[in-house]
Amino acid sequence: MRLILLSGGAGKRLWPLSNTNRPKQFLPVLRHEGKAESMLQRVCRQLSGAGLGEALLFSAGLGQRELIQGQVGDLAPILEEPERRDTFPAISLASAYLHSKEGCGPDEIVGVMPVDGYAEDSFFQALGKLPGVLADAGADLALLGVTPDAPADKFGYIVTQQPAEADGCLRVRAFVEKPSAARAQTLIDEGALWNCGVFVFRLGFLLGELKQRGLPADYDELLGMYKLLPRQSFDIEVVERTKRIVAVPYQGRWKDIGTWNSLSEEMEQQVSGSGYVCPDSSGSRIVNELDIPVGVWRVPNIVVAAGPDGILVTDREASAGIKDMVAQVEITPRFKETGWGRKTVLTARRAGETESLTNRAVISAGRFIGYHEHGRRKEIWIVIAGAGEACIDGQTFPVEAGSVVVVEPGMKHALLAYSDLELIELQIGRKIEDSDMIRYADPWMAKEGKGGEQNHEVPARR
Amino acid sequence: MRLILLSGGAGKRLWPLSNTNRPKQFLPVLRHEGKAESMLQRVCRQLSGAGLGEALLFSAGLGQRELIQGQVGDLAPILEEPERRDTFPAISLASAYLHSKEGCGPDEIVGVMPVDGYAEDSFFQALGKLPGVLADAGADLALLGVTPDAPADKFGYIVTQQPAEADGCLRVRAFVEKPSAARAQTLIDEGALWNCGVFVFRLGFLLGELKQRGLPADYDELLGMYKLLPRQSFDIEVVERTKRIVAVPYQGRWKDIGTWNSLSEEMEQQVSGSGYVCPDSSGSRIVNELDIPVGVWRVPNIVVAAGPDGILVTDREASAGIKDMVAQVEITPRFKETGWGRKTVLTARRAGETESLTNRAVISAGRFIGYHEHGRRKEIWIVIAGAGEACIDGQTFPVEAGSVVVVEPGMKHALLAYSDLELIELQIGRKIEDSDMIRYADPWMAKEGKGGEQNHEVPARR
Repeated sequence: MRLILLSGGAGKRLWPLSNTNRPKQFLPVLRHEGKAESMLQRVCRQLSGAGLGEALLFSAGLGQRELIQGQVGDLAPILEEPERRDTFPAISLASAYLHSKEGCGPDEIVGVMPVDGYAEDSFFQALGKLPGVLADAGADLALLGVTPDAPADKFGYIVTQQPAEADGCLRVRAFVEKPSAARAQTLIDEGALWNCGVFVFRLGFLLGELKQRGLPADYDELLGMYKLLPRQSFDIEVVERTKRIVAVPYQGRWKDIGTWNSLSEEMEQQVSGSGYVCPDSSGSRIVNELDIPVGVWRVPNIVVAAGPDGILVTDREASAGIKDMVAQVEITPRFKETGWGRKTVLTARRAGETESLTNRAVISAGRFIGYHEHGRRKEIWIVIAGAGEACIDGQTFPVEAGSVVVVEPGMKHALLAYSDLELIELQIGRKIEDSDMIRYADPWMAKEGKGGEQNHEVPARR
Repeated sequence: MRLILLSGGAGKRLWPLSNTNRPKQFLPVLRHEGKAESMLQRVCRQLSGAGLGEALLFSAGLGQRELIQGQVGDLAPILEEPERRDTFPAISLASAYLHSKEGCGPDEIVGVMPVDGYAEDSFFQALGKLPGVLADAGADLALLGVTPDAPADKFGYIVTQQPAEADGCLRVRAFVEKPSAARAQTLIDEGALWNCGVFVFRLGFLLGELKQRGLPADYDELLGMYKLLPRQSFDIEVVERTKRIVAVPYQGRWKDIGTWNSLSEEMEQQVSGSGYVCPDSSGSRIVNELDIPVGVWRVPNIVVAAGPDGILVTDREASAGIKDMVAQVEITPRFKETGWGRKTVLTARRAGETESLTNRAVISAGRFIGYHEHGRRKEIWIVIAGAGEACIDGQTFPVEAGSVVVVEPGMKHALLAYSDLELIELQIGRKIEDSDMIRYADPWMAKEGKGGEQNHEVPARR
């Protein structure tokens, strides 16, 4: 089975830690064996554990390539959407890629799953059964359905035909989107399941759907007309219009981690990062990515989330609503993970015609910022930890803690990390945007490295 | 009347904005005519308005000289306590200064008031009446007493003899410290007043008190034995043992701004700094000195205070208790106001044997960082706004936005601001503490300037 991992979201409900540079699935807020991991890393780890990690394909948002590579390495090809639309265009494009770029035939089994769910390992065992169920039932689609543990009104319900088939799978009769709690309870009593967005189909089925709509099965053609595709979910555009569907029930824990409340329920500790919650503040949680402490004194049932983009204090139960506030307080994202490491804006200043940005950057060991120049801005690098090598106008020289490198406008520059290389970088000039950048061949292409300047698209080097 | 302004406190109840570098009376959280002002600035402005601003003397904590000068200029002499003790030693030292350094005679009238109270302008009019009342009544002490508006259990009460004298002043019978609310109500019914720490006496009275205790009236002698003085309040050591005391009632608003709750009651706006409180969070306040926004979503009656030292989320009513938590979360203070401007630590990093600090500093127009060198640390200055002049090993040269100055260990350096000069300063070395600093004569002593490197005592230049 080829598995398309949907990673295109850019929700604002986990502000300030998620931003357009780092959607929620990339936040390192979960833990595994004492180490922080993101939802993406957790799903990839669980897929490998279930033997499903060999044939993945990422359907990602624009600009997420380096972020995915930084978190899971070169695990799978990454397709960046030209723009954010919805799951029908994203799944169609990924299917066209499998067809025309990887030569998959119509009988190839394709699975689709979002990377921002949170489930037990047995979820992935159940996923592994879907191809067999699809074939045995002669269905067009096989779905994973979560056995509800409450009549939640925020999910889609899969209405099934009882009793189950001999192999435990269920024929699907209908779908009900976000019913009232009373209606949900009736559905549950009749055997309905939650729709968790996991589908399996034969590639030929989806290519047929494209053909019906007059859409090309060729990847490049479809990519070229991506902006014309319907801004519609795969559920509405395809699933709800398909007759022969079966579902496999999954009885373990599953949740959509989309709010601070649902995320904080999965936190092993009350405090992540530097902070202290006083004993009278029961139910309160701190997620702090700043290097200053957070203290909570006698306020129960809140989440305090602090990062370079801002500080949120929210009631836990009401946290789903914060997106209404984010527009009021949003600033340009200050944190960015890239293919070479990560970067945080410490200060942004405009004084008259002079702009400046002070950044703290870490280049991961063995990686580098590629060779380039800027027409208008000056950069000053001050190394504060680690060791590496700089290249300025063709001259390479070693750098270490205490090294100061001044890059005037028009000077070519690149920087390679031997060990994790931390630096304070100051950009200053009349305009410090990246539009005046000129790229050159990297001086260290022969070495094991991976480059790419922020906001600049670099061809994938897989 | 010579007026001693007590500014020695260093409370932790307004963490994280107050710290040992900046006690609460220096926080710019109040507003006047649209501009931020501190409690110190407010009291000095009100004293001037009442015609009492001409003969002041600051009794300040160690290290507060530059902070006071930065906020109110060269308004009055500043005496720094050699160490923090209590109000009896502080008032005694200031009185000895008036006697032996300023030549005040025993009939000189001396007033004492703390700078961290919050009162209406009429409070200062009442203060102005105390010298006349002291003389008319032939008393040893005249006090300002606040007419209580509630039986608060956190104040000291002045028990008076009723009815009042012809001039409205009251003979004082006794003092009751922090009575129960029931007892407080009885006292109020009998005409008691709150003790707000404002006293007036003849200098000769206090010199007599010193003599009784075998203490010298000479300033330098008393300074030399300061650590031996009793760690006692002036109320307990002197006021409660004095018989002939009169009080003048003040009927306006007065409060001791010592907690986030009492401070936030005086805030004109719900948000100070960058932030947003959603409409469902009634009674909540934000005081934000960071340049990233704070959002409060559906949490009522809290104060969120954010600054370079940390982030506090506290219930308003319970905020007096936060000092119990501060020890858990405290870090080295990151913000400092100095005689030449202000400085904030952006990052502090130790990597192996290398320490580094990244600071953002603003040198106020016309001021300078004095000439000095460090034996072990390197400094890099990058100017991001304003203009000025650097002096390195005897060479002076202009600096402006974009200038980079690298100061190696052992190089003499100083920096003067023509206009407000903002810079990113990086300190890096094996040890970046200031203990290896050597001071030299400032290159710009002839100009209008005021120097002083942080943590370094510079002689006052009044």
